[in-house]
Amino acid sequence: MHEIYLDNNATTKIDEEVLNAMLPYLKSEFGNPSSLYSMGTKVKEEIDKSRKSVADLIGAKQEEIIFTSCASESNVTAIMNAIRSNEGKKHIITTKVEHASIMETMHYLEGKGYEITYLSVDENGNIDLSELENSIREDTVLIAVMMANNEIGNIYPASEIGKIAKEHDILFHVDAVQAVGKIKIDVEKIICDTLSISAHKIHGPKGIGVLYVRDGIPFIPLIFGHQEDNRRGGTENTAYIVGLGVAARRLLEHMDEDNKRIERLRDKLEDEIISSLDGVLIYGDKKNRMPNTSSISFLGVDANELMFMLEGFNIYVSTGSACNSREAEPSHVLKAMNADLDKYSPIRVSLSEYTTEDEIDEFVKKVINIVTMLRHKNK
Amino acid sequence: MHEIYLDNNATTKIDEEVLNAMLPYLKSEFGNPSSLYSMGTKVKEEIDKSRKSVADLIGAKQEEIIFTSCASESNVTAIMNAIRSNEGKKHIITTKVEHASIMETMHYLEGKGYEITYLSVDENGNIDLSELENSIREDTVLIAVMMANNEIGNIYPASEIGKIAKEHDILFHVDAVQAVGKIKIDVEKIICDTLSISAHKIHGPKGIGVLYVRDGIPFIPLIFGHQEDNRRGGTENTAYIVGLGVAARRLLEHMDEDNKRIERLRDKLEDEIISSLDGVLIYGDKKNRMPNTSSISFLGVDANELMFMLEGFNIYVSTGSACNSREAEPSHVLKAMNADLDKYSPIRVSLSEYTTEDEIDEFVKKVINIVTMLRHKNK
Repeated sequence: MHEIYLDNNATTKIDEEVLNAMLPYLKSEFGNPSSLYSMGTKVKEEIDKSRKSVADLIGAKQEEIIFTSCASESNVTAIMNAIRSNEGKKHIITTKVEHASIMETMHYLEGKGYEITYLSVDENGNIDLSELENSIREDTVLIAVMMANNEIGNIYPASEIGKIAKEHDILFHVDAVQAVGKIKIDVEKIICDTLSISAHKIHGPKGIGVLYVRDGIPFIPLIFGHQEDNRRGGTENTAYIVGLGVAARRLLEHMDEDNKRIERLRDKLEDEIISSLDGVLIYGDKKNRMPNTSSISFLGVDANELMFMLEGFNIYVSTGSACNSREAEPSHVLKAMNADLDKYSPIRVSLSEYTTEDEIDEFVKKVINIVTMLRHKNK
Repeated sequence: MHEIYLDNNATTKIDEEVLNAMLPYLKSEFGNPSSLYSMGTKVKEEIDKSRKSVADLIGAKQEEIIFTSCASESNVTAIMNAIRSNEGKKHIITTKVEHASIMETMHYLEGKGYEITYLSVDENGNIDLSELENSIREDTVLIAVMMANNEIGNIYPASEIGKIAKEHDILFHVDAVQAVGKIKIDVEKIICDTLSISAHKIHGPKGIGVLYVRDGIPFIPLIFGHQEDNRRGGTENTAYIVGLGVAARRLLEHMDEDNKRIERLRDKLEDEIISSLDGVLIYGDKKNRMPNTSSISFLGVDANELMFMLEGFNIYVSTGSACNSREAEPSHVLKAMNADLDKYSPIRVSLSEYTTEDEIDEFVKKVINIVTMLRHKNK
């Protein structure tokens, strides 16, 4: 039975071109890139080609790209670098809707005497820039804000935040894990100091990420060692780095076109469901949202029940971020938005370049049937 | 032309069985292990099977195994955990012959007010346990010693060190990256608190490692997040974790047998070279050495020249650890041994289970020819 995978914000399928580029490095091209003989130096050249592709994707210089094992590592590295490079400054500003790797690091730092301001969001999930500006203190060392939210899809005003950070001489870290591939990223426009991305959200493998570090800012590694120009220890994951390079190049080639099509499908999905069912609530900012994401809820229908029934038809969606889905607690993002989850608990539908119109039609049909049936049953 | 790869301490070729086990997770089985639907839970089960295989390999319990991105990450995590869990204790004991990920972390900590004792080694590369005992202070928080040395192959007395550490209530971290697969590891015999291994030294992929953490010791993550039971953030690298599991199981099945054969080949290699050439010096402890490693030098012959000439015949050896080989400085291990590198600069020959007797015969022949020729030229 054909699988309809609509959980691309959790992870994506590796693209065939990406996989094919990786395979030689899992087979014959296994040399250690640090080795001085040709088996090593050849691989090292391929790593630097990938570095160039990733740099091009986000408007960075090649030497500003550090390969890490995942965006969580990139996020923690950026935060720890900010505080280690600026001892004495004890205040960080972030939001209530960040990824677990940011949130958990902040909680750890609170225990170490740091003060964290968690910016609130309104009922649409948006932050307020004046609250951000009012939170800035003499000892604010870092502003860490995601570029787009994984659960509701909202796009945050990274360039405006970057400008504010720069005016106050505060480091600015951007978690761009969900944004990459879905909206244009340009580190020169954002004026960020560090930025995280991950391969597995853009049809690359799980287990490779990037930390962009602006040229000239002080940098202290999280994982010490000689690789990555002494900025990240550990023998290079050459296969995945090569794969990530191809994934980045593919995005550069056709993400604009793909995203127009994806947005049309997402909007069609929402329109058709709304026109067929009452009591549909879509979370997030409808205007300023990633093109692929819909956080959609149905009055009186439990999202987990809906998710599992869809799975029975080989349709995969989620009920929150994958990273938190094994936790018993409801989504911190929806909680921060004051969502009435007893009435409206959302499923998250997230499309990719592979999503077809037929799949969306099938999904819409099944959702309408299941919601109607569940509502009837619960009467 | 057939490649003769004798640099297995730098990295190894992925075993075919390992690769075949990985491939489904790079293709159709791409679900996020944190997802609640079957695509995710199936993958999560495979991850836990791998955890069991790795635990079995080192005599640990399944829940004591944390998957990381590499042994460098594991090493840094272990060190940072030790000091973060024991604030106020400012002294660490390690050796002069550790891996860069340990050394560079120690250098960083020195800048933060920690005092590090670097145990010296004798001309055979061995440490002195009485020096270790004499170095212990009231505020010693951690002893970090490798189980076997990557460059010279020496095996260090991990169980004796473990006993000393335990008597003094000091945490003990073991870097077992080179030891794993070459000698038996049993965390209960070593009585270590933490231990690092890496897949790519045992015919697994580059970019996945393990940190063993003894049940019951306090643990603060290096990379915060919900995965690995809140001990290591980041979406799991399922393909590589599955591969590492198979690599571990393979070792359990036939490493004892393999290592006997490998040792015989290594000894044959050394014996034949010594019987044909004068002025051959082998570094390291000849009795207490990993079975696969030979650090062998030839009076008056520059190791780099020899290495590159061997490469001309598709024979790959190194002149030190891969992690340091791009540094201009001579090996810190050989320096610590007071080696006379102007006279005797070694190549490192490291065998694997794939190494055949024919390859060793060919290697010996070529080394004898090249050394004879170089000596003649330099006269």
